[in-house]
Amino acid sequence: MTENVGNVIVSGRVRLARNYFDLPFSNAERPENAKLCVQRACEAMHNGTDDVYTLHVLNDMAKTNRMALVEQHLISRDLLQNSSVGAALIRKDQQISIMINEEDHLRIQSLIADFDLPAAANAAYETEALLGKVCGFSFDSQLGYLTACPTNTGTGMRASLMLHLPMLTRFKQMGNINQSVAKLGVTMRGIYGEGSEALGDLYQVSNQVTLGRTEDDIVEAVTAVGKQLIDMEGALRERCLTQQQNELKDTILRSYGILKYAVTMDEKEFMQHWSNLRLGTALELLPTSLCTVDELLTIAQNAHSKLYAADHESGAPVNVARCDLIRERLNA
Amino acid sequence: MTENVGNVIVSGRVRLARNYFDLPFSNAERPENAKLCVQRACEAMHNGTDDVYTLHVLNDMAKTNRMALVEQHLISRDLLQNSSVGAALIRKDQQISIMINEEDHLRIQSLIADFDLPAAANAAYETEALLGKVCGFSFDSQLGYLTACPTNTGTGMRASLMLHLPMLTRFKQMGNINQSVAKLGVTMRGIYGEGSEALGDLYQVSNQVTLGRTEDDIVEAVTAVGKQLIDMEGALRERCLTQQQNELKDTILRSYGILKYAVTMDEKEFMQHWSNLRLGTALELLPTSLCTVDELLTIAQNAHSKLYAADHESGAPVNVARCDLIRERLNA
Repeated sequence: MTENVGNVIVSGRVRLARNYFDLPFSNAERPENAKLCVQRACEAMHNGTDDVYTLHVLNDMAKTNRMALVEQHLISRDLLQNSSVGAALIRKDQQISIMINEEDHLRIQSLIADFDLPAAANAAYETEALLGKVCGFSFDSQLGYLTACPTNTGTGMRASLMLHLPMLTRFKQMGNINQSVAKLGVTMRGIYGEGSEALGDLYQVSNQVTLGRTEDDIVEAVTAVGKQLIDMEGALRERCLTQQQNELKDTILRSYGILKYAVTMDEKEFMQHWSNLRLGTALELLPTSLCTVDELLTIAQNAHSKLYAADHESGAPVNVARCDLIRERLNA
Repeated sequence: MTENVGNVIVSGRVRLARNYFDLPFSNAERPENAKLCVQRACEAMHNGTDDVYTLHVLNDMAKTNRMALVEQHLISRDLLQNSSVGAALIRKDQQISIMINEEDHLRIQSLIADFDLPAAANAAYETEALLGKVCGFSFDSQLGYLTACPTNTGTGMRASLMLHLPMLTRFKQMGNINQSVAKLGVTMRGIYGEGSEALGDLYQVSNQVTLGRTEDDIVEAVTAVGKQLIDMEGALRERCLTQQQNELKDTILRSYGILKYAVTMDEKEFMQHWSNLRLGTALELLPTSLCTVDELLTIAQNAHSKLYAADHESGAPVNVARCDLIRERLNA
């Protein structure tokens, strides 16, 4: 295992699905129950002193602001589908977000910037404990936690690592990897979860199964697969740096030049250049920091770009605003 | 006519074809005559004081050095074909070059950086007068100067303007223009003359016919067509700047970014970006000067890039050396 895990890992995440025991699953068609879930969650997390959590009620928000939360991975695309009842409690440091009235009553999400999934899991359990004080969760002594969709029943846990795997992608290894990790109960998804594309060569490695395994087993399995992928990606990077240095540098530096100078760019093209930008930063071929690069991943998406144009009153189309903000960051 | 003629014009050139009256045309198969032509030309141009002209004997030169003279437009590709007998006398300021043993015994070429073809013609006549003092030229009182190929008979003159016409090219106007100017006895060719591609959106506008027209008529016709093309190109540029500003800027700045950062690039791709670089410089969208840009046109070609790699002992492949020298100039 190489030391520079951060060169491949973008973030880690643990998510717990929970439902109040006294309410039927799924609140999409039950606005009164949905309201009650929001009230209970707020009661649990607002302790009367400084508010650490902010409540975001989707119905009260502009579409762009909702989408910005998706881009920050603080809420899911599925919650947008339930926007008439959906809400989220988001901790100020954005490490914890509690989605309310998504598929389940509660989805507790704990984000970390590195590899430490056990720490993320612990933060999620602490939040779960606070939420459970107001009202208990639907639990079966044989199955474990019960959920709206049976694929989440048991632990209700999804542990995932967001990995940047440009070399494995370029060398067409991802098909094989997908098949191999499936045997370990682990699955690879695109940047916005199930069914989404692997834009920017980003993959979410997460557990497929939630039932019949302990939380620790799940965290361990995802971590083990993540470590292996990091090693494989690292080995390919080193090989490329020795054997195809000019071509590799050329690809990376061209993307950097384009990001620094382009005037208009759509999201899909941005993600391609972003991948090269991150790879070049990790390989120390560029003057950028991983921190800046990973921040760009969020703020150069469509909703954030629209908000940037609005903030700067530039009236720029989204693809132009994206380039404005990218240039601002890269030249900072 | 806009004031910034230099935004479109890259160079002007007048070329005179001459043959010594006492020798048969074409020296490719007559090494003794070829040698005599070189001797006569040297005698005419070396006046005993400081040598203003340098003799380049192709047979004594490395292939790359010969090719570099082609890239500087100081000798023609046709002279390379005759490299066993070919030579060139080149004035130190590179404004005058005399090719010896190309298709004709002598090809006098006078280069200018601007629009002033009459001045270029005068400089060519002065050179011709000096050359003619040693031995007279093949001349017919009815036809004019006689040449190896009948298409050059008469004045033996080709007057040409090298124009950069990116907008006319992009808006697919060049086909129509070719047809129209043909009616005026004017022809459009690529950067390396007859049959060559219009790389970099560069076109040589020159007279088709050398017979039955005076030298002044030829210069006037080429100048008139050149002025009209400059106006047409200028109008399209202005329209684009108003109506498609973001797209135009994007194209230009991306090329600039790529030129500043690419690690390897072939000649053909370079010419595409060069065209955008020149357009952006002319439109004052880039910090570069037309002088630097036009210099790049020569020094970033294959032979010059190879010489650059050799000078810097970098051992870099030609496509990498090209990028090295481009970066050096653009960051200067």
